[in-house]
Order: sequence, then C-alpha cells, then structure tokens
Amino acid sequence: MEKFTESVSFDCRLAPYDIEGSMAHARMLGRQGIIPKSDVTRILGGLKSILSDIERGKFRFRQELEDVHMNIEHELIKRIGPAGGRLHTARSRNDQVALDLRLYLRAETDNILGLVRSLERAIVGQAEKHLETVMPGYTHLQRAQPVLLAHHLLAYVEMLERDRERLTDARKRINVLPLGSGAMAGTSLKIDRRSVAKELGFGSVSANSMDSVSDRDFALEFCFAAGLIMAHLSRLSEELVLWNTEEFGFVSLPDAYATGSSIMPQKKNPDVPGLTRGKTGRVYGNLMALLTIVKGLPMTYNRDLQEDKPPVFDTVDTVKGALGVYAEMFPRLKFEKKRMADAAARAYSTATDLAEYLVGRGMPFREAHGVTGRIVAQAVAEGKQLGDLTIADLRKHSGLFKPEVLKRLGAGASVDSRNSEGGTSGRQVALQLRRIKAKLKK
Amino acid sequence: MEKFTESVSFDCRLAPYDIEGSMAHARMLGRQGIIPKSDVTRILGGLKSILSDIERGKFRFRQELEDVHMNIEHELIKRIGPAGGRLHTARSRNDQVALDLRLYLRAETDNILGLVRSLERAIVGQAEKHLETVMPGYTHLQRAQPVLLAHHLLAYVEMLERDRERLTDARKRINVLPLGSGAMAGTSLKIDRRSVAKELGFGSVSANSMDSVSDRDFALEFCFAAGLIMAHLSRLSEELVLWNTEEFGFVSLPDAYATGSSIMPQKKNPDVPGLTRGKTGRVYGNLMALLTIVKGLPMTYNRDLQEDKPPVFDTVDTVKGALGVYAEMFPRLKFEKKRMADAAARAYSTATDLAEYLVGRGMPFREAHGVTGRIVAQAVAEGKQLGDLTIADLRKHSGLFKPEVLKRLGAGASVDSRNSEGGTSGRQVALQLRRIKAKLKK
Amino acid sequence: MEKFTESVSFDCRLAPYDIEGSMAHARMLGRQGIIPKSDVTRILGGLKSILSDIERGKFRFRQELEDVHMNIEHELIKRIGPAGGRLHTARSRNDQVALDLRLYLRAETDNILGLVRSLERAIVGQAEKHLETVMPGYTHLQRAQPVLLAHHLLAYVEMLERDRERLTDARKRINVLPLGSGAMAGTSLKIDRRSVAKELGFGSVSANSMDSVSDRDFALEFCFAAGLIMAHLSRLSEELVLWNTEEFGFVSLPDAYATGSSIMPQKKNPDVPGLTRGKTGRVYGNLMALLTIVKGLPMTYNRDLQEDKPPVFDTVDTVKGALGVYAEMFPRLKFEKKRMADAAARAYSTATDLAEYLVGRGMPFREAHGVTGRIVAQAVAEGKQLGDLTIADLRKHSGLFKPEVLKRLGAGASVDSRNSEGGTSGRQVALQLRRIKAKLKK
Amino acid sequence: MEKFTESVSFDCRLAPYDIEGSMAHARMLGRQGIIPKSDVTRILGGLKSILSDIERGKFRFRQELEDVHMNIEHELIKRIGPAGGRLHTARSRNDQVALDLRLYLRAETDNILGLVRSLERAIVGQAEKHLETVMPGYTHLQRAQPVLLAHHLLAYVEMLERDRERLTDARKRINVLPLGSGAMAGTSLKIDRRSVAKELGFGSVSANSMDSVSDRDFALEFCFAAGLIMAHLSRLSEELVLWNTEEFGFVSLPDAYATGSSIMPQKKNPDVPGLTRGKTGRVYGNLMALLTIVKGLPMTYNRDLQEDKPPVFDTVDTVKGALGVYAEMFPRLKFEKKRMADAAARAYSTATDLAEYLVGRGMPFREAHGVTGRIVAQAVAEGKQLGDLTIADLRKHSGLFKPEVLKRLGAGASVDSRNSEGGTSGRQVALQLRRIKAKLKK
Repeated sequence: MEKFTESVSFDCRLAPYDIEGSMAHARMLGRQGIIPKSDVTRILGGLKSILSDIERGKFRFRQELEDVHMNIEHELIKRIGPAGGRLHTARSRNDQVALDLRLYLRAETDNILGLVRSLERAIVGQAEKHLETVMPGYTHLQRAQPVLLAHHLLAYVEMLERDRERLTDARKRINVLPLGSGAMAGTSLKIDRRSVAKELGFGSVSANSMDSVSDRDFALEFCFAAGLIMAHLSRLSEELVLWNTEEFGFVSLPDAYATGSSIMPQKKNPDVPGLTRGKTGRVYGNLMALLTIVKGLPMTYNRDLQEDKPPVFDTVDTVKGALGVYAEMFPRLKFEKKRMADAAARAYSTATDLAEYLVGRGMPFREAHGVTGRIVAQAVAEGKQLGDLTIADLRKHSGLFKPEVLKRLGAGASVDSRNSEGGTSGRQVALQLRRIKAKLKK
Repeated sequence: MEKFTESVSFDCRLAPYDIEGSMAHARMLGRQGIIPKSDVTRILGGLKSILSDIERGKFRFRQELEDVHMNIEHELIKRIGPAGGRLHTARSRNDQVALDLRLYLRAETDNILGLVRSLERAIVGQAEKHLETVMPGYTHLQRAQPVLLAHHLLAYVEMLERDRERLTDARKRINVLPLGSGAMAGTSLKIDRRSVAKELGFGSVSANSMDSVSDRDFALEFCFAAGLIMAHLSRLSEELVLWNTEEFGFVSLPDAYATGSSIMPQKKNPDVPGLTRGKTGRVYGNLMALLTIVKGLPMTYNRDLQEDKPPVFDTVDTVKGALGVYAEMFPRLKFEKKRMADAAARAYSTATDLAEYLVGRGMPFREAHGVTGRIVAQAVAEGKQLGDLTIADLRKHSGLFKPEVLKRLGAGASVDSRNSEGGTSGRQVALQLRRIKAKLKK
Repeated sequence: MEKFTESVSFDCRLAPYDIEGSMAHARMLGRQGIIPKSDVTRILGGLKSILSDIERGKFRFRQELEDVHMNIEHELIKRIGPAGGRLHTARSRNDQVALDLRLYLRAETDNILGLVRSLERAIVGQAEKHLETVMPGYTHLQRAQPVLLAHHLLAYVEMLERDRERLTDARKRINVLPLGSGAMAGTSLKIDRRSVAKELGFGSVSANSMDSVSDRDFALEFCFAAGLIMAHLSRLSEELVLWNTEEFGFVSLPDAYATGSSIMPQKKNPDVPGLTRGKTGRVYGNLMALLTIVKGLPMTYNRDLQEDKPPVFDTVDTVKGALGVYAEMFPRLKFEKKRMADAAARAYSTATDLAEYLVGRGMPFREAHGVTGRIVAQAVAEGKQLGDLTIADLRKHSGLFKPEVLKRLGAGASVDSRNSEGGTSGRQVALQLRRIKAKLKK
Repeated sequence: MEKFTESVSFDCRLAPYDIEGSMAHARMLGRQGIIPKSDVTRILGGLKSILSDIERGKFRFRQELEDVHMNIEHELIKRIGPAGGRLHTARSRNDQVALDLRLYLRAETDNILGLVRSLERAIVGQAEKHLETVMPGYTHLQRAQPVLLAHHLLAYVEMLERDRERLTDARKRINVLPLGSGAMAGTSLKIDRRSVAKELGFGSVSANSMDSVSDRDFALEFCFAAGLIMAHLSRLSEELVLWNTEEFGFVSLPDAYATGSSIMPQKKNPDVPGLTRGKTGRVYGNLMALLTIVKGLPMTYNRDLQEDKPPVFDTVDTVKGALGVYAEMFPRLKFEKKRMADAAARAYSTATDLAEYLVGRGMPFREAHGVTGRIVAQAVAEGKQLGDLTIADLRKHSGLFKPEVLKRLGAGASVDSRNSEGGTSGRQVALQLRRIKAKLKK
C-alpha cells in the first residue's frame, strides 16, 4: 500500500523548489504578522540546512513519510522544534505542490529554451559552412529540385525557432503563483500573495483558488511543446539515418555518436538519431498520459493528479537529453559535398526551371509544363541528362527557347534563380541566415 | 485506387479558401506582370462564378480529379479557356494546400474563440445569479470547505480564458503566408509575397520554402489547444452528470438537453454532458493521429500529409459543436440552491475555520490542526454537526476559544472569511467577476 | 553521450532472464559440439555465480558497459577467462535481447494472470456476501432499475475474466523463441533451436530470422491488454470514488486505503481509487509510446527499439501494483446495505416492471410504455412512490391491471422477476457465480 | 442540439445488422409466445421491405428520429401498424446497439481476415519469384549481411500471419450475444437467448446483463488489432518509399500506384505507401479515442458510448482500404535484382561469415570477431572489397584460414550458409514458404 501511494521516490526532485517556496512563504507570514519573526528566522535557518544536506546528497528521503513536502516539514520540525509546525500556516499541500511543479517547470523550460538555442546555433554553424553546397531537394523522398544544404538545414532552425516561441508562450501560463489558494477555498488569514509572487519572480497570481489547485494545463502545454520538439528531432533523425546509409552517403556521423561493430569497423550505426527517433514515442506517450489523467476529473484536487509528475519529469529528461546530444553532435557532422552535388546533377531536377523559363517567355503555365514534360521524357528515353541537351534539342519542342536557357539547366544556376522570398538562392539563404542569427542573439 | 488516394471528398471544404487564395495570387501575378492583366480579369471572373456555384450547392466535385485544387482549376479552364492555365504559375499544390489549410484554420480559430467567449459569458451569467449560493467545495469528491457556487463556476471561466489565450498564441503561428514557396525551393519568377500576405491578412510570410511546404506545426498546435478545451468541457460535463443525479441533486438540466425515457418521464439522462465527455476521446485521438503522421517524416512534402485534414476537420466540428451546445444550454441550467446549502451545512466542512481561528489566536498550525481534529472526532461520535457545538464544548479542547468563534462555524460565515486573493469570499468573487467581465468585453 | 545511449540503468532488470537464456544457449552449443564441453561447464559456473551475486544485490552494473548483456559477458570473461568469450558464439545482441524480453514478459504475464485471478476472487467473495443486497442499477448515472449488488460486482469479474482470456491469447505470441536468429540472417553454425526452445519452455521457434529480431508485436499486445485492465480498474475506481461520497454513501473504504485529514478525521479520501484512475493514463501513454516507436520502422533491428523497455517495465509495475492493492483492499470494503436499499426503493425504478406486466397481459410494448409513463407522471405529480399506488390508481390507466401487480412494485420483487439468462434475479446471479467460480479454479 | 446528439448520420451503416437482429428477436418472441405469431409475420414482412429499400438506396434516414434504431422502428410501425410496436418487447436500445455493433464488427473482421490473407498471398507470390534474389539485409539501415529478397518479404508475411491470429482471437470476444440484457438488468419476460444466439451464429451469450450493455472491450480489441496491421503496413510502406528512391533503386512502383508530375514524367511519387504510412496515424488515433472514452466510465450504459462508432467505422474503412490497395499493388511491384545484388556485393557484409569460419575452426567467438575486424579495416584502408582478398591476405591475420574460406566471401555463398532454422539460406526460405502456404490454404 505505502509503495503504491507514496510519491517521494520521484517527487524528491522537487525538493529545492519546495524549499524555495517555503522560504518565501515563511517570510511573508512573518511580514504579515501571522507568525512571529523569530520563528521565521528559525524556519529559514532550518530550511537552508536541509537544502544544503540535500544538495550534498546527505538527506535521506523516507518512503513512509509519503511525499517530498512531508519529508521536509518533518525534518524541519525535528531540527528546529515547534516553530517548524508554523510553516504550514495558511497553505495546504494542494497549493504547495502546484507551486513546486510550476517553479520546477519554469526552471526547466528555461533550460530547454537554452538547449534549443544551442542546437539552433549548431545547425546555423553548419549552414554557414554550406552556403554553396548544392544537394537534391526532395518531395516524397524523390529528388525534385536542387537546393542549398544551408537552405535545407535552416528549415530545421525554423522549426526550432517556432519551438522557442511556443515554449515562451507556454512559460507565461506556467509563471503564475498558485500559493495562497489553500486546500481550494483560500484562507481567512491575512496573507499577501502579491509579495510572494514578486519574491519568487511570478508574473501574476492565480485568480481563482479552486481552479488553482486543480489546474495542470501548464504541464500539459509544456508536454505538448516538448512533443513537437521531439517530432522535429525525429524528422532530423530520420534524415540523418537516411543520409548515413551507403545508398545516400550524404553525411558521416562522428565516431562518438555512432557505433561500429567489432566485426565491421567501417559500419556506423546511427545510434543517436535512432534513439532520438525512438524517444519521440516516449514523449508522445507522456502527453497522452496527462491528457487521460485530466479527462473527466471533477473539481478540485483529486489524487489522480499525483500521477502528473512521472510523465512531466520523464519528458524533461528526455527532451533535455536529446537536445543536448544533438547540440554537441551537430557541429561534428561531416557532409559529403561531392555525393550531394552528384545526386543533384542527375534526376532531371531542373525541369521546373525549363518550364519557368517558358512561362517567363509568355507561355501559359499548364502549356509550359506539358512542353517540359515532353522534353524530359525524350531525354530519359535517350539516356541523357538535361544538361546534355542542345538548344536544337529544346527548340524541337518550342520556338520560345533561346540559347540563354542552357545556362539554367545546371543545378547551381537553378538554385541561384530561385530568388523569391524564402527561396533557395544564395541571396535568400544569406538573408535567412542573417535574420535567424539576429534572433539567436536575443 | 482512386478512392484510396482521392481527397476531394473531404478537402472540398477548403474550396472557399482555395478560391480566396487563388484570387489574391492571380492579382499579384498581374501586378508583377507575370501574366497579362486581361487574363487576371478572366481568372477572377471565373473563380467568382465557381465560388457562387459552390455556395449555392450547385458545384459537383469529381473524385477522379482527386482534390479540391484540381477540381477548381479544371473547371476554371473549362469556363474561361487557356487563361485559366496561367493561374497555377509560380505556385505548386504543395504551397497551395498549405495556404488553404492556414486560411481555413485561421477562420475557424476565430469562430472557436468567439464560441469560447460565448460560453464564458453564459457561465458568468450564472455566476452572477449565484453570488450568494453556498455549496460544498470538494477535494477527492469529498466535501471539504463551503464555497460559493459562483466561485466554483468561475473556475471554469478561468480554464476557458486560458484556452482563449492559448488559441490566440497559436493563431500567430497559423497566420503566416506559405504561398510563394513553390514545390519547396521557391520560384525564379518575380513574385511579391508580401503583397499577397497583406491582401490575405497574414501577419508574416514564411521564411524558408522547404519548411513552409512541410510544416504542419500550426495544425498540431490547434489540435492540442482544442484538446484542452475538450478536457475542460469533460470536467464540466462530469460535474453536471454528477450534480444531475438523485444523490447530488444540485442541478436540473433543461428538458431539451436531457432525455427522459417514455416510461420514466421524470428521469433526465444528461445527454449533452455525456456526449461531450465522450467526444473528448475523439479530439484527443485526432491529436494523436497528427503527432503520429509527422513523426519521422523527412523533408519536404510527403503524401502522408494529405492525412492531416480529416483529424483537423473533425476537431473543428467537434469543438464547435460542443461549445455551441454548452453556450446555449448553460443559461438554462437550474441550480438547486437548497440542496447545495444543506449539503454545505453538513460534513464538518468548517473544521478548517476552527483551526484558522486558533492560528489567529497564536497557536502553531500543526497544533491547531490536532485540536480541531479532536473536536471534530468528538462531534462525530456524539452525532453533532459543528454548528451544534457550544462554547463550553470547544473550550474543553482549548482555552483560546472565545464565544465569537461560534459565528464562524456556519457555512456562510466560513465562505465570507476566506477573503485572500482568489478566495471564495463574496468580496473576492465579486472582484474575480469584475475582472473577467472586463476581459470578455475585449 | 554515454548517459544518452546506455540502457543498463533499466535493462538490468532483465539480468536473470539474460542468464537463464545464456545457460540454455551454452548447453546447446556444447551438445552440438560448437564449443568444448569443458568451456560449457565453466560458462555455467560463471553465470551461476554472477546470478547469485545479482540476487544478493552484490553485482555492480556499470554504465560504461552500456547494457545488461555486455555487463554480464564482461564479468563472465573476467571470472572464467577466454572460455567466456565463447558464449556469444552463434548469437547476437539482437536475438539475445528479444529472448530476454520474451522470457521477462512471459513471467510477468503469468504474475499478472495470477493477480487478476486474485482480484476476481476478492470480488466474488464480496458478491457472495451480497446475494440479497438490492441497490439501484444506473444508466447515465441515473437510477434505472433495481439490481443485486452481487450482480453489479460480477460485471467487473466478467471484465477481468476477459482480461485473463486476452492475456492468455497474448501469451501464445509472447512464448516464441527468437534465439538463433543471429543479427538477423541466422547463422552458418549448426545450432539446434528446438532443443533450446524446449529447455526454456517455449511453445515454438520463430519462423523468420529477420522478423524475429525486429518484432515487438508481443510487447505491444501485452501493453494493450494491460491498458484494458487499467480501463476496467478505472471504471471500478470511479464507482468507488462515487460510492464513497457523502451523497451516495454506498461504501466505506477501509482506513488503510483512504486518508483522513488531520483536521477532518471523519473524511476519507479515496486514495487508492483516485491513484488507480490516474495511473490508467500512464499505461495508455506507454501503449501510445510503443505504437509510435514501431511506426514506419524499416527492417530489421533499429536502435529505436531500445526504447521499448521503459514503457513495458512501467506498464508491468503499474498494473501489478494496482491489481495487488485492489486484491487486498476489496475484501475489506464495507458496503452500506441500507443506503443502497433506500436508494433502490425510490426513483420509480420499477416502472419497467409495470410495463412488462402489461406486455405480459397482451398489450403491445409501445402502448404499455405510454400507459406506464402516464402512471409515473401522475405519481410524481402527487408526490408518491410507485409502492404507494393502489390497484384503483393503476386501473384508472388500464383495465388490464389485476391486484397481483402490486407485488411487483417493490425493488426486491422487481429484481427477482428479471430471471432472463444473465439477468439480475437471485437465481441468475447464483448461476453466474457458480460458473465464474468454476473458471477461477482452473 | 439535434445535430449534436443525433447518430443516424453515421449509425445508419448498422441498418442491415439492426434488421437482421430484429428479425431473429421477433421470431424468438413468437416462438416463446410473448407476441402473437401473426404479428411476427407482419414484422418480418415489414423489416424485409425496409431492408430492401435501404439496399436500393431508397430509404431516407431522418435526423430528427435520432438513430438507426428509431428510424427503422418508426418506419415499421408506419408500414405495418400497431404490430410494429411489439417488436421492441423485451429489449432496449442498450442491448440492441450492442448487438448491432457486434454483428457489424464480426462481419468486418471476417472481411479484414480475408484481405490480410489476400495480401499475404500477394507477398508470397513475389517471394516465390525471388528465391534466388540476393539483397543486403539491414540493421540500423546499414547493410549488414546478405539475405534473400524472399526472406525479407516473408518477414512481412509473418507479421500479417500474427495479425490474422490476433484478429481470430479477438473475434471470439466479439462473437457473444448481448441481446436479452434489456436496459441492463435483464427482463421478466420468458425470452430464450440461446435460440437467438444460435440463429445469429453467436458462439455464446453474455453472462451478465450489466456488463453486457456497457462492454466495448471487443471494439477496443478490434481497433488495437487494426492498429498493429497498420503498424506493419507502415513499415512496409517505409521500405517501399526507400526502395523507390534514386538512391536505393530496389523497386519500381507500377504507374497506377505512383504519380509522376506533369513536368517530370520519370518521377514516381510513392502515393500508396506514403498515404498508407500517414493513415497509420488515423488508426492509432481511433484507438486512443476509444481508450479515452471508456476511461473512468461508471456502470452501465452512458451516453459517452455513442461515440464508439465513428472511430470503429473509420478504422474499418481505413484498414480495408489499405489492405485492399496493397493486395492489388503488390503483385505489380518490379524488384530491381541487379541493383540489389550490386548493393549486397559491397559493404563487407560477409565479414560475419569470416568470423563464423574461424569459430568453426575452433577460435573463440570474441577473438574471431577481433581478427575479422582487423581484416575488414585493412581491406577498407586498401580500398578492397572482401572478395578481392587472397588467402595470403587472410593468413596474415590468422593461420586457421584455409583456401576454402574464399568461397564463403561472396554474397550468394554467405546466404546459402545461413541454414539455421528460420535463416536466410535457400533451403530454409523454401521451408518457410511451404509452411506459410499451407497456413494460407486454411
């Protein structure tokens, strides 16, 4: 039974936040004259010594005391006597645990924001090295049009930049003080919630005590934002796994992030990408767990909510782990420019350029597509690449072609021509890079 | 095969947005001199006539044309001839469908924001009628402390207010123009994306064409925000189901929202709450569907993404349906004040007030709890409610009690005393109400 | 990095199964003459001593050795020298980990089957005590028809009985030997898989080595079956939470399974039911995690699969914990017969009996329902229960009523009359009980 | 409101099953003398004429009649008069809808079982054509060891064979008669459930009326089994997408199952695999929807359960669609033997064979791995494939090598040597094929 209902085996992680909250609470109780100043001093001293023991790994959490709150309060009373019994004045475990979880998630959100930024910087670093590396752009995993590797990489930076925005929005809703809601109805004692909020750096105080003790929306929103981060990393991982194959050969993973086998030392199993892709499931599952927990829960605090912590903690650990490893690994990736360039040069990926040339010369789009399709079909039939075609070959299909068109059939020229805003031309990619670097400075 | 791959049976819903986008695109092509102005005029005329037919239900979408885009373009060419073939210049179905989905979701997000506000107003309306209705507040579905019904109801308004904030944040990331990204690399034609964005009311243009055609984060974020709305409605539904039982008897559902049976006409099955609680599963499932779809998807557009629309559409319909019905039903709920008051008067729910009284008189919290516990235990043993106790009864347990304490043992007095910020006192609830009404005006 | 990729911190749980599998493998290698018999003896001795150390908590798993397999093999070589290097002959970590996981899940499936049976017996025990306890049966949480508490309880036994069947079916697909599949292509050495299967108690050997190392269907099926067990427990928990309220008052939770507060000692927070309901989310989430992991995974073993273990282990722990606590708690529940009987006697829940009486007298069903509805409506209007009606009252609505009908208006008579197979009459419930007890003996 | 609560827009799909069930019910009522035989005749006639109208698309379901059951009963009474009002005797919509859903799912399970078998046969057909096609086997998407294409394909047949077993097990739990449970307590009328079960082909009758009307485990189990089918198809789809790339070039998709673009007619977008992989999300989402719906639902029927049908129906349609298209497409796939053979010949994928040779000559496994690793490293350094090595090259690393070893370095010889049960040798694959064909005959 005790083992089934205890939470200290996992919520002990909240201890520093629990103590930080308790200290602010005690100071406020003193300021408001609710408990004697001398008791406040004793409480603060006791809590500091407990925190110090915890930080040095010298505090033994006891399962029979059930949760982190009781473990600390029990120890406080043991250390400083009856004054410790005044700490819990005008609060309840219901608002206390909500406070701890918010302090914890705020700190971890900031950590994750930092890690996302680190990974963005690492990708940007690679993009800067590959402002002239041409590769095939894919749709449906089919080579479609040549692009710059820098452009491809910056697509991931865009995703991560949205992740930062989303997390920053979520942080606003995390950063609300629940303490002072009591068990759920507030308290008759003359507390001052605003001063506690100020001391703990909260942007606002919760407006309704009943909502306050039962609200876990902020944890859900965090888990969703984390799920999207993992979705993005799963996409990047999929590409690294692909690019690391013999068949693609676009990237070499650094030895530390890929295992060879003892028997095939040349083989490089993409461990980090594979694991990261797999860990996406874990974070999705945690989100689903939390959604299930809150479904149909009546007001206000229900014991079900104790189960909010394991998925939140696991999400934090997993996302931090994956971002951290990626941020370290990314600068060490070696992209195989030649393989990429060769692949881009083939596969008729500049067919669209031919069509856009004809459109530029006045031919309606659908007709231009038809003409180009016939040119490509003929080239395929004759075993030629588009670059092998002569102006005479082209003019058989349309009199609108001028010799200048031939220059557009190379992958590099194709890339350069796509100069629409957000496009893959060197100029546009340089602009993207400049903008994103400015954002990353903030 | 055709039936397996077609999407027009569901994406026909995007038709008005597809046409809106095409009209802005055509105008821009004309302004930029990419296609002749006369063709623009023809295209706009043709699109308007098609839209008009669609609105009057006179347009037949054909499955063999696969999707909404081809259906409309095909019909346009049929109506206005080769000029119609110029519309698709400098765009691709990849950026076109991304545009349509964003226009659609922006409109529906606004609709849902309006519906959330309507429901908030409906709840606020009931709260205003119940500023003096006392009921038991529950933790673990056990009566814990008396609260005002208005306070309880406003807890849901807080949840919905967060939903509005969250949706508003999500809307920023929906409201980005993808058009002009082409198949994924941009275009060599001299388009002007900013003017299109301005015409269509977008806040910004997407920064990276590859990201742009494969990004569905905005749809996921919408589905998550919708999932939380349903989580909140599931909680409210659970309470209405409970309160509508013989056992609780706290609410009467209006006849239109609850079925009696032909044989037990007095029975009122809570149809709307039950269905709404069930529909929560549907919206959670849609979120999970989308998360699964994007997991591990390499760049850029992949056919998997066609499957984004059914869960998004179903989410929109379900959430709008539930919010709409709730907004209509809520003002018609009849709360049973007497049953609530009777329930609040029992169950020793003012025990905390006793303890807080003692704390106010200087007794440490833990000690005050102990004393109160003994008083309650004795009352239970003697079959008395707390209100039945005399000052002599109390003073047997602590000399700190003065006769004034007796006034605090009623549910009403208990409620009034909880005057901390966000608490359940009449004054605090009136403040909450005023603040929320100010927000709802915006 | 090491921390990100290691698995020994959780897969150390597989150690006893890893050793069991290695011992069987070594014996087979010896029998087949692939390695010397003397080396087999050394290997077995070494493994036994390692197992013994693990069981006594004296084995230190080292993170830098990555996983449980390398930890054990490394230690084996340390203890017995080069002979230990022969153990891994004709196998790979890919088939080895599949073996370990199957052995583990087979054992835990058997444990869970036992726990389900224990809980079924506990519920049956209560049902036997309440073969005459009448309570209201609910639809839509509205009192609908009187039933026996035993009947209500046996509904849960039916669910659990299906859980046992489902787990038993899943066990067939768990109980297949993967060892001998090598890295994924089999081996050129002359191994004998059937003898290993026999020694380890497997029902069959896997048919295709590539499928064999990448198949995790058995783990998914287990997690789903576990999810349904939790769904059932969540329903039972919901009812215990409800029944434990002041409003229902149908059950008293034993003190050890419900916490009072220090201040309201009479209050009983339903901890075990609340937590169990919450833990349902965890198990659902684990299933979703695994489904996500295997989505879109190409052949054969991929590193993603390392992530299969945390959700499986957490599922095993959670389900065993919940079943174990429920099996202990259930016999200690005290059902409040009087509250149940009183509730059943009200609410016009025998209206259906009136209608069935009329049908028995020849009136068409829809007409009988109409007549009954009018009788109930009149009784409600006059503030009477059905038991208060006289034969004259009834005959005003239909001449088919005879005085005998009055006997059918009591809750007990109503229960007794529902004697269709599977119905709630005492006779039928006794039959159900007899059948289920026979199944539980197996 | 009506639109929110109605279900006939989707449950009309159950009409044929509803009528089938009603006919069996009416016959039983007649046999038992509960309603007059002449009324039975009228009812059967009326139901037949309604069914005929439905089948010919001439029946108009009306939303204001809410569900399929009321639509049919209402029409029946309209057609045959008051006798129609006797049909609903001794049943309730609660047991009726449970019956309909079980009849529907039993039929669709059988359809899906047939489609799985068709797909298995299609894959087996390809496997038979590729009993000598050598390709690289992959782990971590890295070439690891050569295998037969037939062996690779049969891995999927194994998965599908498990799917059939699992669905067949689930079918047992679908195939239980709920009718006769009434609203939830059974009935006082003398019905004969066993004869109805027999007539409708059910394997058993449900044992507990309360469980019977609230049980949706069978639908959940079906949805899970469908989810695993989709997981398997998502893996196969991932491989077809990969193999269809320029980079792999292992397969050519038939034109009908892959779209070229108008402009790049040589391109083949893998539509069916991409869509199927995407649709996996849909089916996972449906499972999650159902799991959420049943979480925490108290006894017995609750309106939430109306929401069970949309996810079930969508699952049926999606899985049937995907299996059907795959079964048609698979025989038309063209595998590129030469590309596969070339890939298998490279990448040192016979290194394991070298090691196993040394083990066969008595060298301990770990040592053999070390020696082989050094050989491979040297070959890589010298730019040689393993097939380029001479016996002298090998003997530099170990004196155990004899000239015969050279024959083992080719991909074909490697495949042939892996003759352990379930391995990739021609002999083993032929055995697998024979066994699976025998199973598919059943």
